[in-house]
Amino acid sequence: MKNKDFLAVELSKVEEHLLKTLKTRSKMVEESLERFIKSGGKRLRPTLTIIGATFGEYKSEVVVPLATSIEIIHMATLIHDDIVDDAETRRGTRTVQSTLGKNTAVYCGDFLFTRAFMLIADMAEIDMMKDLSKAIAFICDSEIDQNEQRYDQTVDVRKYLKRIAGKTAALFSLSIAVGAHKAGCDKKITSKLTNIGKNIGMAFQIVDDILDFTGNEKTVGKPLLSDAKQGIFTLPIIYSLNSSYREETIKAIEMIKDDGGERLMHCVINSGGLERTKGLARKFIKKALKIKDTLPDGYGKEAITEIIERQLDRKF
Amino acid sequence: MKNKDFLAVELSKVEEHLLKTLKTRSKMVEESLERFIKSGGKRLRPTLTIIGATFGEYKSEVVVPLATSIEIIHMATLIHDDIVDDAETRRGTRTVQSTLGKNTAVYCGDFLFTRAFMLIADMAEIDMMKDLSKAIAFICDSEIDQNEQRYDQTVDVRKYLKRIAGKTAALFSLSIAVGAHKAGCDKKITSKLTNIGKNIGMAFQIVDDILDFTGNEKTVGKPLLSDAKQGIFTLPIIYSLNSSYREETIKAIEMIKDDGGERLMHCVINSGGLERTKGLARKFIKKALKIKDTLPDGYGKEAITEIIERQLDRKF
Repeated sequence: MKNKDFLAVELSKVEEHLLKTLKTRSKMVEESLERFIKSGGKRLRPTLTIIGATFGEYKSEVVVPLATSIEIIHMATLIHDDIVDDAETRRGTRTVQSTLGKNTAVYCGDFLFTRAFMLIADMAEIDMMKDLSKAIAFICDSEIDQNEQRYDQTVDVRKYLKRIAGKTAALFSLSIAVGAHKAGCDKKITSKLTNIGKNIGMAFQIVDDILDFTGNEKTVGKPLLSDAKQGIFTLPIIYSLNSSYREETIKAIEMIKDDGGERLMHCVINSGGLERTKGLARKFIKKALKIKDTLPDGYGKEAITEIIERQLDRKF
Repeated sequence: MKNKDFLAVELSKVEEHLLKTLKTRSKMVEESLERFIKSGGKRLRPTLTIIGATFGEYKSEVVVPLATSIEIIHMATLIHDDIVDDAETRRGTRTVQSTLGKNTAVYCGDFLFTRAFMLIADMAEIDMMKDLSKAIAFICDSEIDQNEQRYDQTVDVRKYLKRIAGKTAALFSLSIAVGAHKAGCDKKITSKLTNIGKNIGMAFQIVDDILDFTGNEKTVGKPLLSDAKQGIFTLPIIYSLNSSYREETIKAIEMIKDDGGERLMHCVINSGGLERTKGLARKFIKKALKIKDTLPDGYGKEAITEIIERQLDRKF
């Protein structure tokens, strides 16, 4: 039977596999990627892959490279995101782009993408290849949308949800789906798990966007209000723009560089925007829990429950 | 029998397939990618794939998506290169990064990579997937090397050749190899073609580096001396640094922003650096022709001869 150390043991294997897979010609790049790996991160996506696989016949030697490839894809998108966002820090340590420069960071991201594809090709997983390619294309599409929607005061909840479905939830649902699929789960269970993954992803991103306002800079590992400062309007702002605080919110956004976001913070709190955002996150959590209830009892069900419930009160 | 229109017909199918494959959610991105496609380019890599396939049983419906995926990978690397190089123009038209911004350009490149992988996954070509992933990783490695070697006066011919083997020749040899492989050529012929592709790639990149000095800006489609201005030392400079003109060359590089590269041009010509560079390009061409001679007679042999011979006196 799987005890409570099981997940930690499997994740430590993923960690080892990550370090092994990222060997490359340039010592500087290797060190920078190693620092990035060792700076941690929640490893939520590989966790989902592992849990997904426990619903079928769990084979560590198959699940570990699978989970690793998913985390590498995620790391690649983070490195490219940091270029776009001009981010200095991530997970409390300096980003690849800030240590090696944007130039090298572009290729580091590409390098990671191909490393992940090589892992998957080694597993001869054509279907996973297709799904993963689709998920990455979806992520790119949504990031491009997000860029095009900068400073657009007409962005509404629908567009926001579409954006985060692509940029976050797609990879979450895929993470758990490939685990389940590879362990030979039946279609019904795999589809339930995929759906749970999607809802966790939606909640995760919404909570991320809340933390951009309410988080502790040190715990979150990056400066607060970083999205708003770049004109990316997330849910708290969208709700605030769609309330009686609209004019005040518009002014607050214009003044963000002068007052460091103080007025904007006032708007999202007093308009109820932040509360409504939390409410929506709770909805996705509830949906995930409801589907989870229909899963067969056992280790996997308990583990996924913990993951779902942890989302609402996470601090980083 | 394949007549002289054959290649043009097949390439026009690749062109169609390129446009079809690049449909995406964002109109702005789609238009920008369409402009990029329509700005032309030599389509040398898909040409090699097509020619490679003529040595076996040629099936257009198989070769066209294969050749398209190779060109898409190439396009993705160009878009990321242009971000790194801050390039305003490419093929005489504005680059994706200069029209849509670096941010969107990062994701456009990623988007193209995944589109290519999706095409290949559709063909269920696991081996090609692996080879292509390896080739892209090799390209990334070499571009990172190139970045790390900026302004390094100790870069020698060996390091230069290693760099261009990765950043250019790897994809050239793969382009022709996948064509041959997919058409069921025997191993001996595929290996010869792969080797020819590699030598064409080496010559191609060396000629590119010559054109950065001697080309016509309008014909080449980008500003001259762009590598030198970024501290990337290509073969003409390396030879010049390894001649009695070393001190003059070092000074000329330092002054490039003041005199627009006039002194440097003087150095690479008078040191014989440019001539020696041409000599090395000719060596690779000769090697390619020598291997070509051992190929079976027919359309493919004629076509590849023309491609090889065209490299030396190309103007763009």
